[in-house]
This record gives sequence, structure tokens and C-alpha cells, in this order.
Amino acid sequence: MPQFKPLDSDFESRIRASFDRQMVMRTIGACLEQISPGEVRIELPFSPGLTQQHGYLHAGIVGIIVDSACGYAASTLMPAESEVLSVEYKINFISPAKGQTFIAIGRVVKPGRILTVCAGDVWAHTDGERKRVATMQSTMICVTK
Amino acid sequence: MPQFKPLDSDFESRIRASFDRQMVMRTIGACLEQISPGEVRIELPFSPGLTQQHGYLHAGIVGIIVDSACGYAASTLMPAESEVLSVEYKINFISPAKGQTFIAIGRVVKPGRILTVCAGDVWAHTDGERKRVATMQSTMICVTK
Amino acid sequence: MPQFKPLDSDFESRIRASFDRQMVMRTIGACLEQISPGEVRIELPFSPGLTQQHGYLHAGIVGIIVDSACGYAASTLMPAESEVLSVEYKINFISPAKGQTFIAIGRVVKPGRILTVCAGDVWAHTDGERKRVATMQSTMICVTK
Amino acid sequence: MPQFKPLDSDFESRIRASFDRQMVMRTIGACLEQISPGEVRIELPFSPGLTQQHGYLHAGIVGIIVDSACGYAASTLMPAESEVLSVEYKINFISPAKGQTFIAIGRVVKPGRILTVCAGDVWAHTDGERKRVATMQSTMICVTK
Repeated sequence: MPQFKPLDSDFESRIRASFDRQMVMRTIGACLEQISPGEVRIELPFSPGLTQQHGYLHAGIVGIIVDSACGYAASTLMPAESEVLSVEYKINFISPAKGQTFIAIGRVVKPGRILTVCAGDVWAHTDGERKRVATMQSTMICVTK
Repeated sequence: MPQFKPLDSDFESRIRASFDRQMVMRTIGACLEQISPGEVRIELPFSPGLTQQHGYLHAGIVGIIVDSACGYAASTLMPAESEVLSVEYKINFISPAKGQTFIAIGRVVKPGRILTVCAGDVWAHTDGERKRVATMQSTMICVTK
Repeated sequence: MPQFKPLDSDFESRIRASFDRQMVMRTIGACLEQISPGEVRIELPFSPGLTQQHGYLHAGIVGIIVDSACGYAASTLMPAESEVLSVEYKINFISPAKGQTFIAIGRVVKPGRILTVCAGDVWAHTDGERKRVATMQSTMICVTK
Repeated sequence: MPQFKPLDSDFESRIRASFDRQMVMRTIGACLEQISPGEVRIELPFSPGLTQQHGYLHAGIVGIIVDSACGYAASTLMPAESEVLSVEYKINFISPAKGQTFIAIGRVVKPGRILTVCAGDVWAHTDGERKRVATMQSTMICVTK
């Protein structure tokens, strides 16, 4: 696990403020669980309003939380007056998203001044057991405000 | 544009029934606009509850509708007693998702008995103008029920 | 098909000079077939030294030619003193790469000052018939020299 | 690191025989360095015939070795009478491929009877130091001969 040094010591409050402005996170019920340099965790409890045709969490919702976790992971290493946008991502769905709670973990693979490469996973937690449901590789761009 | 021949003449009602069971589509307000062999359109009106930090549609929501459009496009060419799941997708975000209505168009690039390759786009519509906001390439798997 | 206006009227000779410096293209026997604003075609004759275990063209070689075609497609729209690098690509292999000649077609989906999104395909040609063997979606970055 | 149990105890000689039939590996000078359950390493010495316009290893060659490493990593967990093909891959290029030797490491993320998800990296080695040049996420399919 690489050690990253944040440029902006106040990264956590900057990221929490940005997350709070994402109305979609409130709509789906996601919360920012943990923020450390180069890694962010987002937690989402299961909810019947977010399901696909079999009653499991919809793959697209899995995608939202891990994309956000990756974006904020990149953001932890960015300067204060900057913003991170998803250029693109690729996600593989590896098990049905069946569980009580879902934890998305996004981490920086390679930080850069303009582009940052991230990787992420989503784990379904049920009665103390966890199972990986998806894995992502993504590219983020840092734009100065 | 390739011409595809569906195996199941009743594909439209099969797909509409599956879509109706996706609670997440009701939650976000998406509807199935058009279904033809190898191509499906999903429409989503803008809603403040689906936004990111700048008040535009969240990239993850863009991903949901185009992934669904691609999955159902693959499904139009599948046998009656089958189901389509997303193996993986890759999406590029090419403009901010700013608009009144979003149309996701998913289409089959190469159908297969097991795997089907799809492509899709999301267009933001504002006052009669449209702008592409994202483009996707994805792999679907057909499983027999 | 979108119409693109090149910034550098001399794009064709700039691209041909860059291609000629790619020793790997000479090693595999690829040649630049056609260059137009936002679209580039690369041709590769089949060669036994480029095969995988069944005697077909190796998927990685398919990837090289279409990635190059996409990169040069992006390059047609760039300023004279610039260079294009692949940030990332995603490729689906849709049929075995069995043929006499392979044509990779790269095209610009969305040009940008920094990032350009491209798409590409590889077609296997045999006795006047063609079959698509792969499809790609990629992101290019323009760097000023 | 997950522990995988191979179904075919003779996986190493099966994979070495397949690799030897890939003429492209001989053409570029790649060799199979290490094979263990769920992980394969391929080594490629730098060669001037494999370069792009700046004299570094061409990104496409980076793609070939890591795609092969991922495919053979999947193959270590497959039954004897089977074969692995790349369905698709996504690769990010994170540093210029500048080095004396390149090591591609492919590993299984999630094995499956039909589809296996892999991840891989390519490292450039120079005077005892290594630097990551690319990272890949891919999907493999197992077909019975």
C-alpha cells in the first residue's frame, strides 16, 4: 500500500462539504464512512427503492458509490482550490449485489497533477461476512476552480 | 445500422415487465421510451434529487440509464426464457450532464449466444437541442432461467 | 458522421512522420492507409510471426493497430506543436482475428483541448468480405511539445 | 492475496505449451517467467524494434504482455481440456514505458466457470529499480476444447 502525502491538510472537510452537496447521495442514502490520503470509503445500506428486477441492489447504484469513492480518493491528494471529475471508468460486476450494507472503497493507484488513476471495489456485507460484488478502474481529472 | 432478427417475438412485453420490476427506475423517474430489435431508449427527466455538487445530473445516474438501455438492447435479441446481466461496462463522460431531459440509447454491436457486446450514448436535451454527455461500451451475458 | 476542422493544415505530413518513427509498426508490417480529419485507417497484412496459439492474429496486435489509429485520429485535430498519448483504452474482442488483411479504423467521438475521446474498430478482410474482430473506446491526451 | 486451488495439477506444462505456440511472443522476445495458481509473470527485454516515436516501448506491446499474463493467470485455474480467450480488457498507461526490462504480472481477481475477472500491471525495471507503467482490468472466457 503506497503512502500518499496530501497537498491540502484540510482535505477531509473539503470532501465532506462536496459530498453533502451531492443530492443523489442523500436520495440513495449513502454516507462517507472514512477518508484518508488516497483512500475513501462510502457506505450504503440496502434499500428496496434501489433494486433491480430480482430485488438485489441495482448494478448502477453499485457503480455510483464506487465511482464517488474513487473520485474522492483522488480528491484527497489535490490542492484546496481544485475539483475532481470522472473522465471515465470501467467496472466489472462479479457477484449479485445481495447484502445488508454495501461498502465501496476507492483508492489512488497513481496520482498526477492533471490525471489520477484510481481503483475501487464494492463489498456486500451480510451478518458479519463480506463478498466482493464489483471492481473498478477509473481515470479522474483535476480542474482548478 | 445492422438489422437484427429477434428470437422471441414477444420481446417488447418481456422487457417492459422486467423494467417495471426495477424499483430503482421508479425511484429515479426513468421510463422506457422505445424498444426495437437491438436498440432501446430510456428517458429520464432532470430531477434535483439526482444531482452532483454543481446541480447537474450525477454521472452515476447517467451510467445507470445507459447501462440499462444497453442491457435491454441485448435482451431484445435473446430467447424468451432468458435474462441479461451486465458483465462489465466502460463509460466516458464527455460533457457535463446539464439538461432538461436525458435520453440513453443502447444498441447491440455484436450479439452472441452467451456474450453480447453493446454500445450506448446519453444525450442531454434542452429546448430542442441535444448534446452527448457520455458514451459506453459494455459486455452482457445471457443466462437461461 | 461529425465534420471536424483541423487546427493544423499540415496534419497529414506531421502524422506520417510520427508513424514512421514508430519502429514497432515496421516490425509488425503495419501501414497508414488513410488520414482524414478525425479519422485514421491503419492496414496490417496477416503474418505468421504475429499469431497466437491457433494461428490467428494475436489479440494484442489487434489492440496495437486500433489504439494507434485512434491516437492518430485524435492527432489530426491537434495543433502543430503537440503530441497525443493514450491515457487508456478498452477493447472488446468480438470474433477471432482470422483474415488476410486487417484494417483498423480510429475516429474521434469528442475532441477536446486536453482530452479527446475516440472509438475504433478492427475489420478482418478475406476475399473481399469483411468481419469486425474488435471494437475500442479510448481516451487520448494532447501534450504540447 | 487469495489462495486458489487449480483444477488441473498439470497447469504449468499446459500453459507453457500454449505460450510456445504464440509466435508473436517469440517475435517480440517475451518469456514466461513464473506461473503459480492465479498469477503469471511475463518478462520482456527492451528492444529497439518495439518502440514508439520517442524510442520507448510501444503502449501496444505493454498491452500484449499484460493481456497474456492475465489470460494465463485465468488459465491456471481452468480444467485441463479448456482454453482461455480475452473477452475484453481496459488498460491505463500511467508512466512512459522506459526501461531495460518489463515485467507483466497478471492475477485472477474472481475466477468463474465461464468468466474470470483478472487484473494486471506492467513494471519497467531499470538498474534494480521498478516503476509501474500500466494497469489493466480484464474479462476472460473459458471455452472447452
